[in-house]
Amino acid sequence: MKVSMHALSVDVFANTLASLSWILEKTATHAASRKIEPAVFLSARLAPDMLPLTRQVQIACDIAKNSIARLAGQEPPRFEDTETTIEELRARIARTVDYLKGVPASALEGSETRDIKVPTRERTLEFKGLEFLQRWAIPNVFFHVTTAYNILRHNGVELGKKDYIGTP
Amino acid sequence: MKVSMHALSVDVFANTLASLSWILEKTATHAASRKIEPAVFLSARLAPDMLPLTRQVQIACDIAKNSIARLAGQEPPRFEDTETTIEELRARIARTVDYLKGVPASALEGSETRDIKVPTRERTLEFKGLEFLQRWAIPNVFFHVTTAYNILRHNGVELGKKDYIGTP
Repeated sequence: MKVSMHALSVDVFANTLASLSWILEKTATHAASRKIEPAVFLSARLAPDMLPLTRQVQIACDIAKNSIARLAGQEPPRFEDTETTIEELRARIARTVDYLKGVPASALEGSETRDIKVPTRERTLEFKGLEFLQRWAIPNVFFHVTTAYNILRHNGVELGKKDYIGTP
Repeated sequence: MKVSMHALSVDVFANTLASLSWILEKTATHAASRKIEPAVFLSARLAPDMLPLTRQVQIACDIAKNSIARLAGQEPPRFEDTETTIEELRARIARTVDYLKGVPASALEGSETRDIKVPTRERTLEFKGLEFLQRWAIPNVFFHVTTAYNILRHNGVELGKKDYIGTP
C-alpha cells in the first residue's frame, strides 16, 4: 500500500494554510488589544531585501494553488495581489483552500510522473511531478508560512509552535 | 500508481537538510570574510523567547531522524547536543542524513497506517503514520530549517531562496 499525491499535497497545504489563517487572526486580536495599526505587521520584514508579511502570505497561497494546478494539469485561478488588511489576507487564504479542496484525488492520479515546467527568472526548471512536490512545492509553501510566522514572532505577536502546527 | 512514504519523508528531509548544510557553509565563509566570530550567528535568534540558530539546526536534525525512526518502528540513534561550531553542526547534519539514507524504502512500507505516539509536555499526541507525516513531521522539519535561514538572513548573511531550495 502506498499513499496518494493528493494526501501529500492538497491535504498538507490546506492544513498549513489553515494554521496561517489562525496566526493572522491572532495577530489581528493582538494588534487591536495593543492598539497597534495592523498595517505595521503587514509591512514588516526580517531583512531589508526580504519580502514583507503581505507578500509572504500571498506567495504561500500562490505556490500552493499553482502547484496543485500544475500537478492536476489545470489552469490555476488567478488572484490579484490587492490585499491591504489582515481580513483580506485571510479571505485570500480561504479562497485558496477552497480551490485546493475542490481538486479531487482523482485529478492528481498519476501526477507523480507528469512533466512539470516552472519558469523562473533565469531558466525553466523541469521536474517529474513527484520531484516537483518533494523539492519545490512542499519546501516553498512551508518557507513562506514559516517566514510569515517568524516575522510576527519577531514583532512581538504572542504565538507559539502550537499555532503553527495546528491541533493534530 | 501511488507514491511511497519513503519518497515523501526520507528524500524530502535529506534534501532540505543538505540545503541547511550548504546555508551553514555559506555562513562560515561570510563570517570569515567579514571577520565576524561565527558564535555570533550560532547564538542569534529572532525573538528573545525563540531558540537560537544552534538549537534550530539540532532540532531540525532530531525531528527528521526521530520521525523516520518512528515511521520505521526503529529506535533512533541519539545525538548529544554538544555542537559549538558551524563545522560541528554540519557534521551533525551529515550524520542525520546518513541515518535517513540508511533506512530502506522497505522499512517504511505500510508505515502510513502505523500508530505513532509523540509525547509532548502537555499530552501524548496520537497519529496514524500518514497523518503524522502530513501534520507533524513535514511542517516541523521545514519550520526549523526555514527559521535557521531566517535567523541568518536577518543577521546579514548573503543567502537567497535558491540556497534554501537547492538546485533541482
